[in-house]
Amino acid sequence: MPSTTRALVLFAHGARAASWAAPFERLREQTAARLPDVRVRLTFLELMEPRLPQAVAALVEEGVNDITVVPVFLGQGGHLLRDLPLLADGIRAAHPGLRLQVAGAIGEDPGVQAAMSDYCVRALG
Amino acid sequence: MPSTTRALVLFAHGARAASWAAPFERLREQTAARLPDVRVRLTFLELMEPRLPQAVAALVEEGVNDITVVPVFLGQGGHLLRDLPLLADGIRAAHPGLRLQVAGAIGEDPGVQAAMSDYCVRALG
Repeated sequence: MPSTTRALVLFAHGARAASWAAPFERLREQTAARLPDVRVRLTFLELMEPRLPQAVAALVEEGVNDITVVPVFLGQGGHLLRDLPLLADGIRAAHPGLRLQVAGAIGEDPGVQAAMSDYCVRALG
Repeated sequence: MPSTTRALVLFAHGARAASWAAPFERLREQTAARLPDVRVRLTFLELMEPRLPQAVAALVEEGVNDITVVPVFLGQGGHLLRDLPLLADGIRAAHPGLRLQVAGAIGEDPGVQAAMSDYCVRALG
């Protein structure tokens, strides 16, 4: 049985302002610290680098054969309903030996929803 | 001393796909259930209704004089650095008796960050 080398790839939108990426970088660092045996990368749909297909190609080059993509988006709009499936199809076609899974939008998770609600209540002071 | 009537206004980006708004609606409902004495509204920057200035005008009409805006954005890009301050200035000018506070982006909150990291770890299976 071939061994499995895993990676977790955060997939975010990207923005013009460099400051925008800060919480995504922190999320990557925080998550990587909890997963010492897994490569954790931050990638973007547009406006920022690296893009998802290039980051995946680099991971495959490093010997990764099992990738979980987590969309760091609050809601499921056109980017997750249309753009990400197209990217995933292209990645699977380019890397036939790779197992690629795509999780649901992070903002739909009940734990994230509860934490966001906590923040709203605290914001009222 | 005049009495205070408060509202919490969630401010999200908006999208073309109606499905996108679902987690924001749930966040509004979940938060409203915890704040029975506060009006909780969901508003959008673009593509969806209601927009922030119109929702605030309706709240002021109802007698609200203290509003906290929570940006339901993951990062602080141009929409929060530029668009939201301009909207807030316009709202303050239009409603001189209103106290309007703007919180930081929900995605920058350490509790939300921790919940997002938990989701990433769980997504690996």
